[in-house]
Amino acid sequence: MDKENIFDLISIGSGAAGLSAAVYAGRYRMRVLVFGADFGGYTSIAGPIENYPGYKEIDGFDLMLKMKEQAEALGTTIKDEKVVRVERQDGCFVVTTEKGDAYSAGTILFATGSEHRKLGLPNETELTSRGVHYCATCDGPAYAGKTVAMVGGGDGSVKGANLTAEYAAKIYIIVRGQEVRAEPINYEEMKKLIDAGKIELIMENEVAQIVGTNKLEKIVLKKEYKGSTDLIIDGLFIEIGAVPRSELAKGLGVALDERGHIIATPMMVTNVPGVFAAGDITPLFGGFKQDITAAAMGAVAATSAYQYYKTNGNLCQTHWKVSGEKT
Amino acid sequence: MDKENIFDLISIGSGAAGLSAAVYAGRYRMRVLVFGADFGGYTSIAGPIENYPGYKEIDGFDLMLKMKEQAEALGTTIKDEKVVRVERQDGCFVVTTEKGDAYSAGTILFATGSEHRKLGLPNETELTSRGVHYCATCDGPAYAGKTVAMVGGGDGSVKGANLTAEYAAKIYIIVRGQEVRAEPINYEEMKKLIDAGKIELIMENEVAQIVGTNKLEKIVLKKEYKGSTDLIIDGLFIEIGAVPRSELAKGLGVALDERGHIIATPMMVTNVPGVFAAGDITPLFGGFKQDITAAAMGAVAATSAYQYYKTNGNLCQTHWKVSGEKT
Repeated sequence: MDKENIFDLISIGSGAAGLSAAVYAGRYRMRVLVFGADFGGYTSIAGPIENYPGYKEIDGFDLMLKMKEQAEALGTTIKDEKVVRVERQDGCFVVTTEKGDAYSAGTILFATGSEHRKLGLPNETELTSRGVHYCATCDGPAYAGKTVAMVGGGDGSVKGANLTAEYAAKIYIIVRGQEVRAEPINYEEMKKLIDAGKIELIMENEVAQIVGTNKLEKIVLKKEYKGSTDLIIDGLFIEIGAVPRSELAKGLGVALDERGHIIATPMMVTNVPGVFAAGDITPLFGGFKQDITAAAMGAVAATSAYQYYKTNGNLCQTHWKVSGEKT
Repeated sequence: MDKENIFDLISIGSGAAGLSAAVYAGRYRMRVLVFGADFGGYTSIAGPIENYPGYKEIDGFDLMLKMKEQAEALGTTIKDEKVVRVERQDGCFVVTTEKGDAYSAGTILFATGSEHRKLGLPNETELTSRGVHYCATCDGPAYAGKTVAMVGGGDGSVKGANLTAEYAAKIYIIVRGQEVRAEPINYEEMKKLIDAGKIELIMENEVAQIVGTNKLEKIVLKKEYKGSTDLIIDGLFIEIGAVPRSELAKGLGVALDERGHIIATPMMVTNVPGVFAAGDITPLFGGFKQDITAAAMGAVAATSAYQYYKTNGNLCQTHWKVSGEKT
């Protein structure tokens, strides 16, 4: 392997956790490479952020750009590429990207976050981006003057509905349970929009069918709402939470909890030597998944990776030196 | 008690942990009061900060101001007053300040941080601010063209020496052990300043005496350095770490570890119902005490305080209502 492709730390994930880790590891003078299939992770598409301490309001993408510049100024390389394989060879980690390029590092950080949970209904995949969406901030503006539905009774769904209300004529929020659980500031905003007739809650109901050919036409509800199970909408936004992206870690023998999160100590150390985890992929702060906690975990993970590196050195360099011309 | 003086959450401490908690609790629509004997805690006097993810460089005081404005915009009251007593009465917490004013809250956050460790030598207290200091960032600029000594082999001492080198003619760093342990980026800067003749390391030595009447005149070292135990200096900066400020918590029955930190779960919950802790006062991330981790812990603590508040309500309001005219 080309010496240029050997790093001290590779972060898989370029969200708040991965970029914060790069800032800290850069200050520790480690050679850092950050991979991100989608730069900035969820934060990049989160829209305006008002709860990152230090910024009264900042767009998620701008916050990620600031962290990127900060990490790059300290020598970090950032590649918007998807990692498809991670292997461990004699204490050195070899990372292969979708393009087929290989890189190695003495330590690995999983900051892979999570991906949108799906309803698992027929037509859902076929109609994705053709009326079915998973990101109101990203795709809401396309529905100016239209009627849309949000699926989910959590904060993501409510925040999405409030944002989409700036464009859409009418928004239904379909909630499976008896309760809407959103951050109070978002809940209050939703109530105002309900009073204004913009938002309508459909409680204790579910999407039974997604109907459409090439384009979403309507959905069928499990139970009647206002005399019908049909709901004619232009857009369906599915905001029912996220599942941790832990397949690559699992393949490496990293221990996961029953929900698929990477088990790590509060110092963000996993069961595999040289492997660390940070951000939404870990269960450290329970269901509380925020930029500020992800960034803190990234900083701590980098510190633990640096301790490991100080003790063991970069085992890739030894490895490649000893074994000679391996690819 | 005046209804105006009853809050849902009182944070004792106005550093990164306390202010971040105020931002989150404010979004949860809790009525928040933050006390700080010294606004912004250590961060305010830390000088330029380059490792808070999202800011490539920001003065510590400015970062604290930004968090303050963010918290105030959400309704938080911030008072630069020292809290001298915290009592628990039927699940309601009563906080008394140095001025003798009383406030109450349904939940309490200890974000009290830590204070500078002292050498414990004769004259140390008498000569404080008369040549003896504990904050190079604050007091270094007063020593332009002078000779000073830093005591301590850790990052605080090295960072302090590097900063003071901008003003002082000569800086000694007195290290008890065989090793200087600083963040690599600060260590490298120190090495450059050693090469430039600005900084001189005095290894495996200690301050035995602080000498001076009304004003520091010299220090006496435990062992000879360059043929003498006397070291004539204008300023002595003691940077040997910090001890947790946990007396108020202790008085309330909050469990502490052997080093005096408040024991809390990763959700920042202590053993006393309604009491939470965040920042340097807790041992969650070990010796890693940074603004980013303090801010994350504050956000988590506020979230746990909100859970408690949702479940129990504000017990002060019940208390004062039931018992009538208590002070």
